[in-house]
Amino acid sequence: MTADPLRVRRLAERQRFDRAALDDVLDAALVAHVALVRDDGTPVILPLLAGRDGDRLLLHGSTGGGLLRAAAAGAPVAGAVTVLDGLVYARSMFESSANYRSAVVFGRCRPVTGQAKVEALRVLAERLMPGRWEEVREVTPKELAATLVLELPLDEASVKVRSGPPSEEEGEPAEDDWWGVVPLGTVAGVPVPAPGVRPGTPPPASVRGLVQKTQ
Amino acid sequence: MTADPLRVRRLAERQRFDRAALDDVLDAALVAHVALVRDDGTPVILPLLAGRDGDRLLLHGSTGGGLLRAAAAGAPVAGAVTVLDGLVYARSMFESSANYRSAVVFGRCRPVTGQAKVEALRVLAERLMPGRWEEVREVTPKELAATLVLELPLDEASVKVRSGPPSEEEGEPAEDDWWGVVPLGTVAGVPVPAPGVRPGTPPPASVRGLVQKTQ
Repeated sequence: MTADPLRVRRLAERQRFDRAALDDVLDAALVAHVALVRDDGTPVILPLLAGRDGDRLLLHGSTGGGLLRAAAAGAPVAGAVTVLDGLVYARSMFESSANYRSAVVFGRCRPVTGQAKVEALRVLAERLMPGRWEEVREVTPKELAATLVLELPLDEASVKVRSGPPSEEEGEPAEDDWWGVVPLGTVAGVPVPAPGVRPGTPPPASVRGLVQKTQ
Repeated sequence: MTADPLRVRRLAERQRFDRAALDDVLDAALVAHVALVRDDGTPVILPLLAGRDGDRLLLHGSTGGGLLRAAAAGAPVAGAVTVLDGLVYARSMFESSANYRSAVVFGRCRPVTGQAKVEALRVLAERLMPGRWEEVREVTPKELAATLVLELPLDEASVKVRSGPPSEEEGEPAEDDWWGVVPLGTVAGVPVPAPGVRPGTPPPASVRGLVQKTQ
């Protein structure tokens, strides 16, 4: 939409170097895209459920197998989180763009094991489904053994942010010209009970909280 | 949240092989994460505005420089699109999960050039901001020269989809147990005019259409 790739000065302005900006992006997303390099030298990407915990990004796969195990074994990864905050309608297509917050974390993952794994799962659950952990039964040792949680240290990261109105365009606008930003956001819809739920059963506090938070 | 990485049978069920499923995922997203391998053998990810056009994924960067040029030069890439459709609240954390549609396209990009580039930009604009192309002035030759559009052929892709209610849990549920799915979706908020817009000017048809589409 824009010529940003070749406009170094503007790009440089979008680069952020503060840790708060990194945390802000990571905490706004539920999914991270994690890139690895395969044996043949080509890249691959895994989408993983993710949540920040202090100085590490916790990752939990919904796909994986060999690739997730390679990540667990310490293969170099890049973990990316992008939040699309809006579409930027400029007076020209060239200046049109998107408002976004994007972070890419570089490094190597470590598997979280032992008692720390239970705690990591709890933290991840709190990020993804706040309050749910306390509403359900405890994780069993068997379930724990079948679960893979990785941590990616937040030692090296690149953060980019674009926000605000469109860049100004040369030339006088027509009287009825409109340009600006359409904000985008994620909202929760009406919760759908599973077939086995007794009709009329209200959703638990965790679900009600999530729905309220996004409205 | 789940033990999916180690549950091959369930994973296999989530793998989709039809082209319609691939198109469905690609057409639902505005941003793709594109992974490349750097000279030192480590992976990197670029978030790029993206839109499908027939048998190719069109990509347009908001970051890039050297990496985007490497992609344009034909370095192997993986382009991922993930749509989070809902959070799956099971009766245990172990069975809790997310409903999602995810596609990863593997291959090499080609730059789109000449008159085809104008058409590619138009198609991309229609995907991201339907109707806007016709509302603004034409792209100038200078702008076109400063714009990089890549196409990634949809020859090799992996598509995974999870939908529906939580997996059933063993044991009788309590009478007041609730489990099910909280749908998630993207919505457009109230359009924000740029500072230069004459007060009271209504947003154009393209903006009104986008807002309506997501409500």
